[in-house]
Amino acid sequence: MSEVPTIKLNNGREIPQVGFGLWKVTEDTANVVYEAIKAGYRLFDGAFDYGNEKEAGKGVKKAIDEGIVKREDLVIVSKLWNTFHEKERVEPIVRQQLEWWGIEYFDVFYIHFPVALQYVDPKDSYPSGWNTLDGKVVESKASIQETWQAVEHLVDIGLAKSIGISNFQGSLIIDLLRYARIRPALLQVEIHPYLSQEELVTFAQKEGIAVTGYSSFGPLSFVELKWIKAIDCPKLFEHEVITKLASKYQKTPAQILLRWATSRGLAVIPKTTDPKRLAENLYFNDFKLTGEEVSKITGLNRNIRFNNPPDYLGTLHIFA
Amino acid sequence: MSEVPTIKLNNGREIPQVGFGLWKVTEDTANVVYEAIKAGYRLFDGAFDYGNEKEAGKGVKKAIDEGIVKREDLVIVSKLWNTFHEKERVEPIVRQQLEWWGIEYFDVFYIHFPVALQYVDPKDSYPSGWNTLDGKVVESKASIQETWQAVEHLVDIGLAKSIGISNFQGSLIIDLLRYARIRPALLQVEIHPYLSQEELVTFAQKEGIAVTGYSSFGPLSFVELKWIKAIDCPKLFEHEVITKLASKYQKTPAQILLRWATSRGLAVIPKTTDPKRLAENLYFNDFKLTGEEVSKITGLNRNIRFNNPPDYLGTLHIFA
Repeated sequence: MSEVPTIKLNNGREIPQVGFGLWKVTEDTANVVYEAIKAGYRLFDGAFDYGNEKEAGKGVKKAIDEGIVKREDLVIVSKLWNTFHEKERVEPIVRQQLEWWGIEYFDVFYIHFPVALQYVDPKDSYPSGWNTLDGKVVESKASIQETWQAVEHLVDIGLAKSIGISNFQGSLIIDLLRYARIRPALLQVEIHPYLSQEELVTFAQKEGIAVTGYSSFGPLSFVELKWIKAIDCPKLFEHEVITKLASKYQKTPAQILLRWATSRGLAVIPKTTDPKRLAENLYFNDFKLTGEEVSKITGLNRNIRFNNPPDYLGTLHIFA
Repeated sequence: MSEVPTIKLNNGREIPQVGFGLWKVTEDTANVVYEAIKAGYRLFDGAFDYGNEKEAGKGVKKAIDEGIVKREDLVIVSKLWNTFHEKERVEPIVRQQLEWWGIEYFDVFYIHFPVALQYVDPKDSYPSGWNTLDGKVVESKASIQETWQAVEHLVDIGLAKSIGISNFQGSLIIDLLRYARIRPALLQVEIHPYLSQEELVTFAQKEGIAVTGYSSFGPLSFVELKWIKAIDCPKLFEHEVITKLASKYQKTPAQILLRWATSRGLAVIPKTTDPKRLAENLYFNDFKLTGEEVSKITGLNRNIRFNNPPDYLGTLHIFA
């Protein structure tokens, strides 16, 4: 068992390079979180949209109550959903999310998507997803500047220690950096060998923005959603380039994919509920891929983006 | 000789679907423009950065003086260079550009790139390009919102009839549409079969923004700049898919590429100084590619972007 490495953010804070992603954790979340803490996970990547913050908070509370960890040992991450982009909506929903978690502050708080949608009251629909109550995708007028300034205010009042952006791309990030009073500490985007994001990672790292890759296993994360694009795509776990390296290093294909990401300086947030894989996905940094091997995996890039809103909504072409 | 079709913009105005691009016209520009007008071109796509607006204006004046066209028959297009993004810089430089052209208004005026650079006085360097006087790329703090609002003001005071954006991508366009008082009428981006931009074109057209594709001939536009990426890329004029269609329809490969673009509803702005090609590049809409043929050309897409600032500047990852 190796140590979990850390990443230093541009505000001086550190986060574990490997965390636990709460997306699609729909059952028994409290216990999943509790077991993950026992297995050694310290960073939990949540979001309003995942619909499980209250349950996740119970798992955290149990682990703290039992003395397994202290609050300050944990890095709790959440995200602002699209329906709360108006400046007056940000602080109230963050206070609600903190209450669900049962904590006083988020360690990291992201804008989840560069998408502003019409407000939906969580009392009427939770998590509300992309649609209004009558099933339509309705954009709102809150600019990213308005929303970012409201998110910066969370740092001022102590509700977030670090702030970041998710699913943003080049020119919009450049624009945000022009008016940001507090620069984003983190950028979270889809990254796997079929979408290696070389230029975006280079750019973010040059700007001192740490990058977290989501969906590290590529299509696998989306097969459970029954997305054709993912089902039709060759599985990375069975890809010859990956399986050969797995044999060479006596690691699982999942570990090769995660190690490829951490070799590039990325943070990762895999999800599993299998106790064995829980450990495997956390402690995998005890070997090194050669530069050539990293490049070979990067060379699998096909610019295949699975989490592209127009594919499932027919609109919101944020990555066009 | 067929008619040149027009495109109707979201403000009710019409522009020719085929125009003449002034990028890289460095010699004898006045005469090039004059001959192009005689050949039937009515739209001229210029920019501060092309460094030839005064000369181009002389060509226009000659044609008008000789009674070949009237000012209102022409669609004169220009662009705001990156060094003038601060709101107080926009109107003065546009007045300067209009003076160079010898006209009272631009028919279309674009933001050239979503890039704001430190001001360089045109008296010290013209066109100044991407660098300050001491050869550095230095960004400025003008947000796209600030710049767009200054460009909107050009419409208010009659200096531009239609306004647009160039080299913008998905999420930044969505952000601009949130605060735009006047929606962009046009988006100008690199489009050719190796960068077919399907999603961006779909998105823009759905938003009622007309799309002009530049560098319709792909690598060819960049070979003359001696860019390795373009030199190493198979020429589209010699690509089997293109040459076969050229034989089938008894057209030149250039005409097949332009017709592919206009079939998709795009405006195009080819450049040539060869008298024969001048006519060929303008009058090519007298045949139809089948839907299958259009798709086949679109299928050549390789996401190869030639005009990517990091390739020539090492920075400004606007397309990351």
